[in-house]
Amino acid sequence: MPGRPRPGEFELIGELFAPLAADEPGALGLLDDAALIAPRAGFDLATAVDTLVEGVHFLSSDPPFDVARKLLRVNLSDLAAMGARPRVYLLGLAVPDGIGFDWLRGFARGLASDQARFGISLAGGDTTAISGPACLSLTAIGEVEPGRSPLRANAAAGEHVYVSGTVGDAALGLRALRGEDLGLSESGREAAIARYRVPEPRLELGMALLASAAIDVSDGLIADIGHICAASGLGANVEAARVPLSGAARSALGRGAVEIVDLLTGGDDYELVFTAPADRSDAVRAAAARARVPVARIGTMTEGEGVSVFDTANARIAIDRAGYRHF
Amino acid sequence: MPGRPRPGEFELIGELFAPLAADEPGALGLLDDAALIAPRAGFDLATAVDTLVEGVHFLSSDPPFDVARKLLRVNLSDLAAMGARPRVYLLGLAVPDGIGFDWLRGFARGLASDQARFGISLAGGDTTAISGPACLSLTAIGEVEPGRSPLRANAAAGEHVYVSGTVGDAALGLRALRGEDLGLSESGREAAIARYRVPEPRLELGMALLASAAIDVSDGLIADIGHICAASGLGANVEAARVPLSGAARSALGRGAVEIVDLLTGGDDYELVFTAPADRSDAVRAAAARARVPVARIGTMTEGEGVSVFDTANARIAIDRAGYRHF
Repeated sequence: MPGRPRPGEFELIGELFAPLAADEPGALGLLDDAALIAPRAGFDLATAVDTLVEGVHFLSSDPPFDVARKLLRVNLSDLAAMGARPRVYLLGLAVPDGIGFDWLRGFARGLASDQARFGISLAGGDTTAISGPACLSLTAIGEVEPGRSPLRANAAAGEHVYVSGTVGDAALGLRALRGEDLGLSESGREAAIARYRVPEPRLELGMALLASAAIDVSDGLIADIGHICAASGLGANVEAARVPLSGAARSALGRGAVEIVDLLTGGDDYELVFTAPADRSDAVRAAAARARVPVARIGTMTEGEGVSVFDTANARIAIDRAGYRHF
Repeated sequence: MPGRPRPGEFELIGELFAPLAADEPGALGLLDDAALIAPRAGFDLATAVDTLVEGVHFLSSDPPFDVARKLLRVNLSDLAAMGARPRVYLLGLAVPDGIGFDWLRGFARGLASDQARFGISLAGGDTTAISGPACLSLTAIGEVEPGRSPLRANAAAGEHVYVSGTVGDAALGLRALRGEDLGLSESGREAAIARYRVPEPRLELGMALLASAAIDVSDGLIADIGHICAASGLGANVEAARVPLSGAARSALGRGAVEIVDLLTGGDDYELVFTAPADRSDAVRAAAARARVPVARIGTMTEGEGVSVFDTANARIAIDRAGYRHF
């Protein structure tokens, strides 16, 4: 429709994006109105969409290579939480005048790099103009055996609550990027910023696990456990001291630059939180070893509702805000 | 991740969007990280994404009920061009503070209305904040038998070029909305605005046709025929006098308020343009009758390249810009 008449979409598609679709026959070279995906017999398709907005989910100064990887990875993280294997993705890009071909070339390079790493191809998309911040939407499609996905509603009382990796680093990274002095070492600061800019989707772990319920940590650890609680009609007890922290986070905490609540409610970690019956703890450990991802037991699902967090003295820690919420 | 802390996403999803997903078991009540779509055996999935940006693809003053239907329909139009039957869709909404619950309720009502009409369900989505114009992205997923889709690259020299419905009305509607006096009758003006605001995806026609190549008219009739030409390595001759026009468009043309080139290059009509061998003209007519959509033959595919448009004296009409282009 009549957007601003501005050449470029076809050149853009041909030069930057068509090469990203070369390995997927269903992408039809990005020439057609839709991609045609042939489903593999015996698999469901897991489909997730996430949107990153400039100034909200990434900073204008973030390298486009990293923005692209973040956009892809936050969606892959959703597939990970469903135990799905990535297959294709579609892009919906609204980009202002200020973002030119160079930025988009860096963006396409980031996608290419992650496509190779995660075994996924571009299958289709749409680019348009916007008089405002860049608005980047991605739909990821993966394959999963029917009944295999650990749905949020499937947790049971008494099950153990686990989290992968470490929690709170992305929130530290964002604060560092905003100029806060957290007293981090240079390498700690860089690692935290890298976690904010480029999350690590736990795909291998998601596929290896046989969890009851799972979610990825995007709103914040406590908020995301709260989503499992709400969907399952249960509560959860979390022991703060068991929540795995990076060296940088421990150091910022020790120095008083952040509080434990900041780490437990910070978003954007994209670790997996999941529940499993107590008698499956060996299987959980084996899956984590297979996926080469550390996993820690941090709590227990309970009757009732809401997430209760306890310190080492077994006193309850007040959580004022259970995590940032987008709109 | 840390967007502005603002309550509402979960209320929004629960009240407005979960009801739209109630009929699709794979939507999982919008509670999970991804939808799980069970493909129907023997079908490919056609997937399309289109983004509408406030101020570019719709006006801030457009009713949200219509914006929602436009967003859904421009994607359904892509499925129509692939001969696919709609099944589910996912939403990626970035919405500024200025757009409140009332606007979104009207938007959800528009989706509900069109879901019933086109037999499609919401399966998943994402809502976030944006400091700028609303950016609304939708991914539509439909089913189509393998090999059935009329790809853009499949046109052959000598094939007839057809278009459904009438062309140029959406461009008139946009000009009328922008305050231009086109000398239209009140009913003609309203009809043109309705075509701009709420396109009619030609799904039944797309499923009934056995075309060689097809595309929906979004960039403008001549530009979109040009896409078929480019993908097929061919040219096309179009006879301007054969292009079907509405009464309103003919009247604006007769009065000199618009030129034929404006109608041939105006975007947003969402009619189907397609090619078929000459010996299939009876089958084309039969499919159009079955779908109850008028179809007109407007030209012929040729060797060479580019779209040549001729007037009734067989003189070539200059087309300066082959259609608006987004970004």
